[in-house]
Amino acid sequence: MKKRVAVIGAGPSGLAQLRAFQSAAQKGAEIPEVVCFEKQSNWGGLWNYTWRTGLDENGEPVHCSMYRYLWTNGPKEGLEFADYSFEEHFGKQIASYPPRAVMFDYIEGRVERAGVRDWIRFSTVVRNVEYEMETGDFTVTVHDLAADHVYKERFDHVIVASGHFSTPNVPEYEGFSTFNGRIIHAHDFRDAREFAGKDVLVMGSSYSAEDIGSQCWKYGAKSVTSCYRSAPMGFNWPDNWEEKPALEKLAGKTAIFSDGTEKDVDAIILCTGYKHYFPFLPDDLRLKTANRLAAADLYKGVVWVHNPKLFYLGMQDQWFTFNMFDAQAWYVRDIIMDRIEVPADKQALMADVREREEREDAGETQKYAIKYQGDYVKELIAETDYPSFDVDGACEAFYEWKAHKAEDIMGFRNHSYRSVITGTMAPAHHTPWKLALDDSMAAYLQN
Amino acid sequence: MKKRVAVIGAGPSGLAQLRAFQSAAQKGAEIPEVVCFEKQSNWGGLWNYTWRTGLDENGEPVHCSMYRYLWTNGPKEGLEFADYSFEEHFGKQIASYPPRAVMFDYIEGRVERAGVRDWIRFSTVVRNVEYEMETGDFTVTVHDLAADHVYKERFDHVIVASGHFSTPNVPEYEGFSTFNGRIIHAHDFRDAREFAGKDVLVMGSSYSAEDIGSQCWKYGAKSVTSCYRSAPMGFNWPDNWEEKPALEKLAGKTAIFSDGTEKDVDAIILCTGYKHYFPFLPDDLRLKTANRLAAADLYKGVVWVHNPKLFYLGMQDQWFTFNMFDAQAWYVRDIIMDRIEVPADKQALMADVREREEREDAGETQKYAIKYQGDYVKELIAETDYPSFDVDGACEAFYEWKAHKAEDIMGFRNHSYRSVITGTMAPAHHTPWKLALDDSMAAYLQN
Ligand SMILES: Cc1cc2nc3c(=O)[nH]c(=O)nc-3n(C[C@H](O)[C@H](O)[C@H](O)COP(=O)(O)OP(=O)(O)OC[C@H]3O[C@@H](n4cnc5c(N)ncnc54)[C@H](O)[C@@H]3O)c2cc1C
Ligand SMILES: Cc1cc2nc3c(=O)[nH]c(=O)nc-3n(C[C@H](O)[C@H](O)[C@H](O)COP(=O)(O)OP(=O)(O)OC[C@H]3O[C@@H](n4cnc5c(N)ncnc54)[C@H](O)[C@@H]3O)c2cc1C
Ligand SMILES: NC(=O)c1ccc[n+]([C@@H]2O[C@H](COP(=O)([O-])OP(=O)(O)OC[C@H]3O[C@@H](n4cnc5c(N)ncnc54)[C@H](OP(=O)(O)O)[C@@H]3O)[C@@H](O)[C@H]2O)c1
Ligand SMILES: NC(=O)c1ccc[n+]([C@@H]2O[C@H](COP(=O)([O-])OP(=O)(O)OC[C@H]3O[C@@H](n4cnc5c(N)ncnc54)[C@H](OP(=O)(O)O)[C@@H]3O)[C@@H](O)[C@H]2O)c1
Repeated sequence: MKKRVAVIGAGPSGLAQLRAFQSAAQKGAEIPEVVCFEKQSNWGGLWNYTWRTGLDENGEPVHCSMYRYLWTNGPKEGLEFADYSFEEHFGKQIASYPPRAVMFDYIEGRVERAGVRDWIRFSTVVRNVEYEMETGDFTVTVHDLAADHVYKERFDHVIVASGHFSTPNVPEYEGFSTFNGRIIHAHDFRDAREFAGKDVLVMGSSYSAEDIGSQCWKYGAKSVTSCYRSAPMGFNWPDNWEEKPALEKLAGKTAIFSDGTEKDVDAIILCTGYKHYFPFLPDDLRLKTANRLAAADLYKGVVWVHNPKLFYLGMQDQWFTFNMFDAQAWYVRDIIMDRIEVPADKQALMADVREREEREDAGETQKYAIKYQGDYVKELIAETDYPSFDVDGACEAFYEWKAHKAEDIMGFRNHSYRSVITGTMAPAHHTPWKLALDDSMAAYLQN
Repeated sequence: MKKRVAVIGAGPSGLAQLRAFQSAAQKGAEIPEVVCFEKQSNWGGLWNYTWRTGLDENGEPVHCSMYRYLWTNGPKEGLEFADYSFEEHFGKQIASYPPRAVMFDYIEGRVERAGVRDWIRFSTVVRNVEYEMETGDFTVTVHDLAADHVYKERFDHVIVASGHFSTPNVPEYEGFSTFNGRIIHAHDFRDAREFAGKDVLVMGSSYSAEDIGSQCWKYGAKSVTSCYRSAPMGFNWPDNWEEKPALEKLAGKTAIFSDGTEKDVDAIILCTGYKHYFPFLPDDLRLKTANRLAAADLYKGVVWVHNPKLFYLGMQDQWFTFNMFDAQAWYVRDIIMDRIEVPADKQALMADVREREEREDAGETQKYAIKYQGDYVKELIAETDYPSFDVDGACEAFYEWKAHKAEDIMGFRNHSYRSVITGTMAPAHHTPWKLALDDSMAAYLQN
């Protein structure tokens, strides 16, 4: 009998897994039966934008954390699929920081061509996964939301690709419960125009704080105040943006910071990160990890050390994204297809995790972190037939990107980089980011 | 061995169930072991207010659909506990439309006195319930969110009291995905002050539309437009409130209605009702019903006809609330304690449901519906030792309330009614509702 493999989620990671199996089949291999469960009605994961917030049309938590006018925050040259370049998809090279709609089109292009849409059961949420010792397989319980029907199926392997930037981490500070303005988490942020003319406080000092603050600034907020718990972002902010230390509390509409300064605000956007959250997994299968490069309990970053028939994709914090998911998906495919062997000794698996943790902790700079994750991508692709590419070159693009941000935080997206897949230099975009108010694909592709 | 009973939810319905068992124990009966699972960190259900929206501090859907400044929308004389009057709780009679905080205090008072808090496992969400034929009992899987630990326990009975006004029904209309203002469901509405100075559209023609529109009006919205799908609310609205027929679509910020009229709006609040949603129940145990007085598949409105060991509380649309939940809880308790017999023949159970449906459908007026539900409450309490009370008197309070609303929609909460439990007339409140901006308990109790 053919093995049966369940993939949970049809975002970039889950789709990479489908493409990995399909590419093996294309080369003549016999592949397992693959079933992908996706709770949304379409693929693309976080890149599948919706105006909805909170709970969706089926009563399930909205997965999307993206928003209007979102452009990639790193150069596309760092994430390009090695088996499907931007040039192949768009018929020409395009500028380096595409908006969401352009990225969605690119993600979709590869899997449409691969013809794997039929493998996906859409509007089907995974409710429960259990491993049975006696039979050595998994029972997966799912809810077909369209038919309102709950059913179970058995699988030899389960691959969790449900993402980890959808369940918001929402702290409470003194005064939140009596604040008469709006408080939302970044997860529920949709349109910067809603904050035009307002005094906005963004809490956090990472990518969401930087980008959501920048969006509000670009679309006409009266002022942006950001506040950090650990360290400031420290960019050269525009005049009406002030960076403050940690929030102490609110008193009415007044935010009071740890240095004693104050600012009256109309709205608070909590850019306080996300939780790895798997409400469908029991204790023995559930990953508990911080958002870091060496995720806990995953051999080679993908194999669940407590039960190596279970895999996780994309659970690391991310410099590399699509190409790293690919590297992982090809690697997991090859384990399942018995091309790669996982050590039988659990100690060996745990030693691998420990080594990764220690090596991550040994460096402090962002450059070290980028190289660390680049090395991880190289390590995995060396063991499969995923097309090898110039990972160091991709790291270089990231280093340049960092320098461009330090130079001009509202101008870094005007730069271009060279593709490590096709070798072509990206054109400059026709309009500087801060003047480009239309984020449609049609507008972006007018190069 | 003692029977084990699981109660899902510690809102008014679940708490009624705990109080029902405790009152039997107090009278000397031997009661089963009762375990109540509550996903929030406190009791009170919808009445447990939070500033949070979307997902909560644990990543679970926020249960609360209530908002600041909410006062009861019907007279308290229609919902008073027959075993614990407002006078007993507050030491005096109070005015007829208490704000949320006052109601919370009242709900809490009875169960604090009963001493049942220990029966509740807080911050524990029920993930799955399965019935096993062989053993004739239920396996309940729960997630202890504080300990991040998933475990299972067996129960002879399960009582679902998880409410049905928390999972929003969120329709999409043409133009929603490109609207540059804010769109939320009533479930995520928290503070009317956020809409001061705005042109607000509320969609729907039921209680949420009426009350959220009224809140926005009271706290300074520039205009309120409400639109109905089936029938207008038809009250004498203030000058800056206009009632329109169904929304056709949005074009930018312009709402276009089915009569061809238009209105530019800043925000849309979808008061489009809720779904009965039980993500923790398999097909054979899951209630699927419209929001009506004769809920589907429930014998006597509480016994699951497809497996009479399972019960549901409070699943009807509600004129009566707390006292109806009590009537149901005492009734379910007595079935479990073998004081009331459920017919063994499934046809008999289904005939009971059919009769209720037909009888509901036979009348069209609100008065008919109120009396219908009053009769239901009478029917149940006649079979248990729940203190009998003047249900017809409570119906009278509801009829008067309807008339007061028709007279003056912004003034109906200034009226008083007589308690059917203590016979005392409620005092007039010290401040007319439309001028009373402070909804705290301290402010309300200054009678
Ligand atoms: C605001 C924001 C902006 C970002 N911008 C960029 C960027 O510019 N460039 C970049 O490279 N990366 C960006 N990212 C990182 C992002 O994590 C990755 O690009 C990518 O989306 C991760 O893919 P994934 O498949 O692992 O997870 P996701 O994209 O999150 O997809 C997971 C899928 O699993 C489904 N799912 C979840 N639970 C269940 C269940 N129980 N049953 C069935 N299906 C389920 C979801 O519906 C979803 O479709 C951004 C992230 C965020 C939050
Ligand atoms: C906006 C609004 C205003 C209202 N105003 C009034 C009013 O003025 N007067 C009136 O009489 N009624 C009012 N109601 C009606 C309300 O339904 C009842 O008053 C009452 O709260 C219903 O009680 P319940 O226990 O059945 O449900 P809920 O109050 O909804 O409580 C259900 C409980 O179950 C818990 N729960 C849910 N799922 C799980 C799970 N999987 N595991 C563990 N726990 C779970 C929830 O956290 C919650 O505590 C209002 C309703 C709404 C939405
Ligand atoms: N394409 C885009 O433009 C774009 C936009 C947004 C996000 N993203 C992506 O989305 C992902 C998530 O980024 P993120 O910024 O949301 O999360 P993140 O990187 O995990 O950062 C979380 C931030 O919240 C802070 N924080 C956490 N808890 C806090 C608390 N209790 N009080 C105060 N501050 C607290 C953290 O501070 P400490 O440093 O003190 O821990 C940190 O600054 C990343 O992959 C990012 O690239 C992309
Ligand atoms: N204490 C308070 O002040 C207060 C405040 C708010 C709510 N509540 C309580 O909360 C509960 C729920 O009330 P509710 O008003 O939220 O829900 P509800 O009574 O179920 O009403 C839902 C409304 O939404 C409309 N609707 C549904 N789908 C629609 C669609 N696709 N397009 C347009 N309209 C649509 C319905 O129109 P149709 O008539 O055409 O179906 C109806 O008017 C009630 O028990 C109520 O008493 C109390």
